[in-house]
Amino acid sequence: MKCRKCGGTAVINMRQHKLALCADDYLAWLPEQVQRFIEKYEMFTRDDRVLVAVSGGKDSLGLWDILHRLGYQADGLYIGLGIDGGFGYSDQSRELSERFANEHGLKLHVVEVEQTYGATIPELAVISNRGHGKPCSVCGLNKRYIMNRVAHDGGYTVLATGHNLDDEAAVLMQNTLNWAGGYLVRQAPVLPASRPGLARKVKPLCRIYEREMAAYTITRGIEYIYDECPHAVGSTTLYNKELLNQLEEKRPGAKLQFYLSFLQAKEAGLFSAKASEPDLHACDRCGQPTTAPGECSFCRLWDKVRGVKNLPDRVPASLVAPALSA
Amino acid sequence: MKCRKCGGTAVINMRQHKLALCADDYLAWLPEQVQRFIEKYEMFTRDDRVLVAVSGGKDSLGLWDILHRLGYQADGLYIGLGIDGGFGYSDQSRELSERFANEHGLKLHVVEVEQTYGATIPELAVISNRGHGKPCSVCGLNKRYIMNRVAHDGGYTVLATGHNLDDEAAVLMQNTLNWAGGYLVRQAPVLPASRPGLARKVKPLCRIYEREMAAYTITRGIEYIYDECPHAVGSTTLYNKELLNQLEEKRPGAKLQFYLSFLQAKEAGLFSAKASEPDLHACDRCGQPTTAPGECSFCRLWDKVRGVKNLPDRVPASLVAPALSA
Repeated sequence: MKCRKCGGTAVINMRQHKLALCADDYLAWLPEQVQRFIEKYEMFTRDDRVLVAVSGGKDSLGLWDILHRLGYQADGLYIGLGIDGGFGYSDQSRELSERFANEHGLKLHVVEVEQTYGATIPELAVISNRGHGKPCSVCGLNKRYIMNRVAHDGGYTVLATGHNLDDEAAVLMQNTLNWAGGYLVRQAPVLPASRPGLARKVKPLCRIYEREMAAYTITRGIEYIYDECPHAVGSTTLYNKELLNQLEEKRPGAKLQFYLSFLQAKEAGLFSAKASEPDLHACDRCGQPTTAPGECSFCRLWDKVRGVKNLPDRVPASLVAPALSA
Repeated sequence: MKCRKCGGTAVINMRQHKLALCADDYLAWLPEQVQRFIEKYEMFTRDDRVLVAVSGGKDSLGLWDILHRLGYQADGLYIGLGIDGGFGYSDQSRELSERFANEHGLKLHVVEVEQTYGATIPELAVISNRGHGKPCSVCGLNKRYIMNRVAHDGGYTVLATGHNLDDEAAVLMQNTLNWAGGYLVRQAPVLPASRPGLARKVKPLCRIYEREMAAYTITRGIEYIYDECPHAVGSTTLYNKELLNQLEEKRPGAKLQFYLSFLQAKEAGLFSAKASEPDLHACDRCGQPTTAPGECSFCRLWDKVRGVKNLPDRVPASLVAPALSA
């Protein structure tokens, strides 16, 4: 297979784009694509301070690399979840994230959930008895909260996550299989900062295939953690990804078409205004926006844990350390 | 496996309902379910004259049997498509449909496309050059047109088709994979007669699994054509059915939940009014409702065929033979 631009040996063939590229041309092409989508969906400009949620995986490190190369002001946030899985998943993830930051001279905020709040995510899942034995639900809740808090405390205007097309299509598939109206209406490349205290959320990789991100980070020589989170095994998301891969195999581009036709249909007004924005107010305790009456889910979760573990009642004034945010 | 009602030997186990039943109890249970859905979705009453579209397959013959047993005024319509497939598909279908009608003393309208209009469906597909070598698109167009005409000409208030849950879920999956807004908004157990000349369309089996219909017709001793239409091989619908069967295998009831949550989301106002009813007007030639400007797609299709085959210009005044409609 030859590169369509220079005729050299191709490292990737993207059947859905009918495009094969060599290493150099691919490393130039992918950031151009991301730039195109940042502009198309009006995600942010070079004046914005962007916080990139970094997990040590190919998508988030690849995204950080791309944003940095494109000249954006992009700092990282690593959240330590305390997940071991028999191979030190969280430790490895942190190390790889820190190594990338150091090698590129980039600023990385680190929030360790256990040190900050008093328990690891797997402990939290057991104590809270949420998520049917899986920590994924409390993990998501904690990550969303902490990302938003750090963005707020650190004065970032935009929070960028590494969700790729496969992630977005799998979530869309799940929300469609259940016809979860509210989630469908809100799934988008950009979630505006609809309220003070809530960061604008963007997904610059939403149209990039998972394998394209893998090819990018490998070709670019970025070290990332290959393993999925050990708790993701058997998840609905992974199952939906397999289904979508079957469709893609049969008809290249099916995944992209599923996602893009969804965005187009929404743009064309398929959904009624009814199911759109939920009512938000400030949490009585931490002040973060929440749909729950009184305290937000995060505060209620940790109240429970503090009770069980006899932990002191601590709500950090800021999640951004002065030394780091300087 | 024992029948949950009488303890006898079960002939079917419906995992999604956690219900196993013996032959007698199943033959009583299924029509009760259909009756429940006819009422729930306000499909028709015993005062309505119902035209059942009959193909000779398990779903349509099973539906006709059930409606007859439930005491509805249900006549049949068989449309001869002229499909052979090497085993006389259409001939066999007609024979089985007529046999069922005779054995149950029911009235069956028969419209042979070739005799009435001058070409078989496979011929039509070739001449019209529609559907990328597959006759399915022209076949659907012809069936929809003829069903509607016969319902109108015969004074039927309701047109019932044998679409089962697997059919509906597969179509829903397709319309979702493409986010075909107009189709999504209009997919429903009942399509109202929104205009004079357009029959109210209902799908009383929309919540019955395909295998439940197979079990019903076999247990009831109804002879039906086992073969799929030879042109359906490799179709997107069959592929989507396989996908949904995988989901169902993993999580019994997934197919039903997909369809029901869709209906519920629609009922709850997920879709905007924008994408709903298309503008219809009477075809300049045959007078049937159409969205196309001037002549309807059916008339334009047959105009072309008459040109190619040098056929006389004939538009039947009525598709319901006086002798049959008496």
